[in-house]
Amino acid sequence: MTHSYVFDVRLHDVDHAGVMFFARLFVHAHDAYEVFMAHLGLDLCAMIHTGERLPVVHASADYFQPLRHGEQITVTLEIETLGTSSFTVAYAFHASESLLAKVRTVHAYLDPSFNAAAPLPPTLRQSLRPYCNTLNV
Amino acid sequence: MTHSYVFDVRLHDVDHAGVMFFARLFVHAHDAYEVFMAHLGLDLCAMIHTGERLPVVHASADYFQPLRHGEQITVTLEIETLGTSSFTVAYAFHASESLLAKVRTVHAYLDPSFNAAAPLPPTLRQSLRPYCNTLNV
Amino acid sequence: MTHSYVFDVRLHDVDHAGVMFFARLFVHAHDAYEVFMAHLGLDLCAMIHTGERLPVVHASADYFQPLRHGEQITVTLEIETLGTSSFTVAYAFHASESLLAKVRTVHAYLDPSFNAAAPLPPTLRQSLRPYCNTLNV
Amino acid sequence: MTHSYVFDVRLHDVDHAGVMFFARLFVHAHDAYEVFMAHLGLDLCAMIHTGERLPVVHASADYFQPLRHGEQITVTLEIETLGTSSFTVAYAFHASESLLAKVRTVHAYLDPSFNAAAPLPPTLRQSLRPYCNTLNV
Repeated sequence: MTHSYVFDVRLHDVDHAGVMFFARLFVHAHDAYEVFMAHLGLDLCAMIHTGERLPVVHASADYFQPLRHGEQITVTLEIETLGTSSFTVAYAFHASESLLAKVRTVHAYLDPSFNAAAPLPPTLRQSLRPYCNTLNV
Repeated sequence: MTHSYVFDVRLHDVDHAGVMFFARLFVHAHDAYEVFMAHLGLDLCAMIHTGERLPVVHASADYFQPLRHGEQITVTLEIETLGTSSFTVAYAFHASESLLAKVRTVHAYLDPSFNAAAPLPPTLRQSLRPYCNTLNV
Repeated sequence: MTHSYVFDVRLHDVDHAGVMFFARLFVHAHDAYEVFMAHLGLDLCAMIHTGERLPVVHASADYFQPLRHGEQITVTLEIETLGTSSFTVAYAFHASESLLAKVRTVHAYLDPSFNAAAPLPPTLRQSLRPYCNTLNV
Repeated sequence: MTHSYVFDVRLHDVDHAGVMFFARLFVHAHDAYEVFMAHLGLDLCAMIHTGERLPVVHASADYFQPLRHGEQITVTLEIETLGTSSFTVAYAFHASESLLAKVRTVHAYLDPSFNAAAPLPPTLRQSLRPYCNTLNV
């Protein structure tokens, strides 16, 4: 299973050269992640209030083709790896069938009591598993 | 008295047309405000922790000339009005003697106990007064 | 007639105090404006390439209630005034029937040949008129 | 040789959890890069006008500790690899001697005539070399 998210490249996304400023790709990836988590019934806002955290500990992006002002982009999201106390989300950015860019974000689970890395709670693991299409589950 | 703040227009500030995206002007105005407040010994971060708030209740900008990628901008900040429970900050944006834009932000004081508008604390009023160059003090 | 645009308040929209950073409201207003213009058949990206410009020459916002992380916001957009060489767009931001904020942006028309203010082209004026609900048309 | 760049973490940099939103780290890295390039006499803005491009083709970040509102951050920048038609910039983010995060950006050189990857011009290579502290020069 994968999860899809659609957005349009806006004027404020692009820079002087008329293409998306590279850091904006991470913002859109995180928007896709928020919608994905909400779809799983996981409310990031509520987690912040309870002290649970899934901070990004690593992020990377590969840019194959520029994302242009006015283009409609589809982000396809899956869980690339599901570790003991962290997981990796992979995002593919397409426009009209062309793969434009890829992003990865690695999220660690922080226990609210200790503010330290802790094993992923079983319910979180179970929610993410269907989107993990590799063998490392 | 006025307070000065300098910044450079970066690639991510400008849009497809090569000039600063209008909303970015407010971000730089707020950066100037944070530095100004710190200069007065007022730590916005600490205030957020204690529950004191000075939210922006009104903001406006006039754009006379575009701010261009690579330009160095000087922001001159003063207190335009100092009311009972709010104050107005006025910011002038110059490059090489030319006035490019003006911004105003109106900040209300929220009492931490009641989360409602309240008179400006005397120490805050006293800190701001020297930067208020009009007669309404 | 009015035009509606919906968005969700994301983690990157809110600041330390858990509410939308004031400058972000202008970004969302402009997103609503881009979608509105596209709905009228006016492609801002194409205009930038041909040299036509509708730069924001004035912007203002009134903040009545904070916009909170996770809220779904409806923006209702109309043309407040339709002048000879400029027009004013008014945006109302609602969540669950409550009016949270208002934004206004004033756009001037710049002629591509002269890079100077010029009368709005008749087709642009005609497209905007149905959304102008006041008597100044 | 390394190049240093200093900035303060502002209210608009941090999110609901009070720490820098991960994508903002890339924005500050790029600001450091712009200042570095200007220091070498390389004007990114002028390059955009002539059609020369050094687009980011890969970016990554490792987050060790959160960057907090109000902290002053020093970015130390060096050239990690200097390839035939691309180079990698490495950025270390410190506050008070603690290493908080690392960023890498890989820039490809695009020839203005062909809009395709091309060997780095000799002057660019020569400017970058002193900041390349590894053996792969």
